[in-house]
Amino acid sequence: MPLTLSAEAEGIRRSMLRDLIAVTARPGITSFAGGLPAPELFPVEAWRECTDAVLTRDGRRALSYAPALPALVEQVCELMRLRGARVAPERVLIVTGAQQGLHIASRLFMDPDSSAVVDDFIFAGVAQAFGGPGRSLRRVAHTATFSVDLNSLEAALAAEPRPRVVVVVPEFHNPLGRSLSAGEARVILEMADHHRVAVVEDDPYGLLAFIGSASPALVAASPESVIYIGSFSKIVAPALRCGWMVLPETLVAKARIIKESVDLETSALTQRVLAEYLGRGHLVAHLAQLRRTYAERCAVMLASLTEHLPPGSRWTQPGGGMFVWAEVPAGSDLMARLPEAVEAGVAYVPGGAFSAEPAPTAMRLNFSNASPEAIRSGIATLGRLLTSLEEG
Amino acid sequence: MPLTLSAEAEGIRRSMLRDLIAVTARPGITSFAGGLPAPELFPVEAWRECTDAVLTRDGRRALSYAPALPALVEQVCELMRLRGARVAPERVLIVTGAQQGLHIASRLFMDPDSSAVVDDFIFAGVAQAFGGPGRSLRRVAHTATFSVDLNSLEAALAAEPRPRVVVVVPEFHNPLGRSLSAGEARVILEMADHHRVAVVEDDPYGLLAFIGSASPALVAASPESVIYIGSFSKIVAPALRCGWMVLPETLVAKARIIKESVDLETSALTQRVLAEYLGRGHLVAHLAQLRRTYAERCAVMLASLTEHLPPGSRWTQPGGGMFVWAEVPAGSDLMARLPEAVEAGVAYVPGGAFSAEPAPTAMRLNFSNASPEAIRSGIATLGRLLTSLEEG
Repeated sequence: MPLTLSAEAEGIRRSMLRDLIAVTARPGITSFAGGLPAPELFPVEAWRECTDAVLTRDGRRALSYAPALPALVEQVCELMRLRGARVAPERVLIVTGAQQGLHIASRLFMDPDSSAVVDDFIFAGVAQAFGGPGRSLRRVAHTATFSVDLNSLEAALAAEPRPRVVVVVPEFHNPLGRSLSAGEARVILEMADHHRVAVVEDDPYGLLAFIGSASPALVAASPESVIYIGSFSKIVAPALRCGWMVLPETLVAKARIIKESVDLETSALTQRVLAEYLGRGHLVAHLAQLRRTYAERCAVMLASLTEHLPPGSRWTQPGGGMFVWAEVPAGSDLMARLPEAVEAGVAYVPGGAFSAEPAPTAMRLNFSNASPEAIRSGIATLGRLLTSLEEG
Repeated sequence: MPLTLSAEAEGIRRSMLRDLIAVTARPGITSFAGGLPAPELFPVEAWRECTDAVLTRDGRRALSYAPALPALVEQVCELMRLRGARVAPERVLIVTGAQQGLHIASRLFMDPDSSAVVDDFIFAGVAQAFGGPGRSLRRVAHTATFSVDLNSLEAALAAEPRPRVVVVVPEFHNPLGRSLSAGEARVILEMADHHRVAVVEDDPYGLLAFIGSASPALVAASPESVIYIGSFSKIVAPALRCGWMVLPETLVAKARIIKESVDLETSALTQRVLAEYLGRGHLVAHLAQLRRTYAERCAVMLASLTEHLPPGSRWTQPGGGMFVWAEVPAGSDLMARLPEAVEAGVAYVPGGAFSAEPAPTAMRLNFSNASPEAIRSGIATLGRLLTSLEEG
């Protein structure tokens, strides 16, 4: 029986990034392709203890339906303080991971024919949340240092019909590995304000600065026009499927109802165990360990890139997060070469997976999920491969 | 700064049901208003043990990203066998609760201007998933015995433009507490097939038959046209936020990508602990206990209604699930009287909360969340109130 599908369902195409990551997840491979935290640092034992405590103390309530847990919301306000923003609990919405935050932000602003302004290279989930049939994603070019090209941004914001949102990843950008300067952030907020376009601040990595703190979250300066999205996936564990939004007060009730329509509520058990984990003060030491570990791995990767990538290559110098973006000299086709790299035991994500355009000389390299030794030998392998390609 | 919201966000209205339930959740009240399982039967200790086992054995993988867990999918296939359907694992999608299943089903079929056929009285989440600006919900009348009026259904399916889906709750309907006969189910499937309209089978209660088994799920007879949605909320615990869909094979990949766009994936930890819980064989005994307990509570409620409701009242005789639907004689306004009832220590949900039309003489009564004693005295209180209103 031929059922009639929605235009969205008819048009669905597989995300290239996710297919690539699946291909590269072979045993024995050094994969710089995924977006995974270091699994050996997951707080397994603490999570076990906190689950135990919550179920012992309050099992029935923890297994039932429940709205947002005030104790967790309070902890989120503390985290926002670490991101430089004072946020009233009333403005916080607990969501089932940052991807749900992107979906809710899209539902708040985007009509079926609306457009959104996004970076030229973006995480696939951003395109999934804000794209779709009838929608347009206006891509903003990047500068020579991989930052936002402000002229390109102004053009995208000014073009008619007026876009509804601009999605900004201020810190440790996925995939570009760059951060905005305080000056750039200010200009972006001013431009968005001028054109009355909502800013969606996608900030899963903001607490992973290697040294000191990242610049304050954009939402601190512009609470009425910024929808902030945070995540526990990269700072505690992805399997929690828990994140948060900070919204202008007028939008919280609407966002909550949209959230109800997609999954009713976020697990009361997860919320309680997370509040227990955070309430015990585990996160400060955990963040310090993550930052130290990732800083070391990133430094090893950058040194290895200097040593092994062909002359004329260039890459970002992340101040935190999990990704380096690298570009090799013209002539290479990193998409075409990926199978050879996998064969040689190393994987990356070709730049084109993040873009509407081909980007044959670019790749995203993840440094959080491999040991320093594996990074050294993996980048050496990659360098040999790319150098031999150049010569061949 | 005045941001431009989506038409959906502009039009959002609070769900009356959820507000009512919040009002009635006062301490000391006997609430027949919620849709809660019996909390004293939540498998708290088993969940603690299974979490412990999973984190001890496989903590790193359990806290990471992960696609659907094959062991859980296999268990879902077993549950579907209990629902009378042989389902290949390839057709199963694990989702973050049944509400997410409704959302995904809507995204698969509904365009911005599509219509869906639904019962005249429905759970608010159905309207949230399939409604919205530009959409229309065609309501199907019910018969004198609260079943689906097949003439009304035929008219709704035949009307142009052709609807995209019909949402059917075959067993222990929320809020109506009725089940479809096998004959009714067959006719509904034939009608939907004839009009080439997809059937969304919303089945959170199908495993909660008091005696024997419910009729086989519709998806067993019509695997190519039925999207089945199951839930662990009522058979294990709501806080798991875990459910499943069974889809025609051609739609699974599309449904998975839509799911990714709303929350990436369902918690690997929850999936593993649930697979552990089910793999240990806990569910058979747990279901037996739930069914025994709810059957007793339902019987007490039905006897109490007979004893205490005003003459001329009538109600459904559920064969399972969690709800009775009751109608009192014309002249009462159960919506207006709710505050008095709450004042007297008892709560229900007025029928209008489930409908596009007022339903002043109807109410939904939940029997799973109160002890037999509380049900007896609560219905007696309600009966006194309604009788005095009649006389007054």
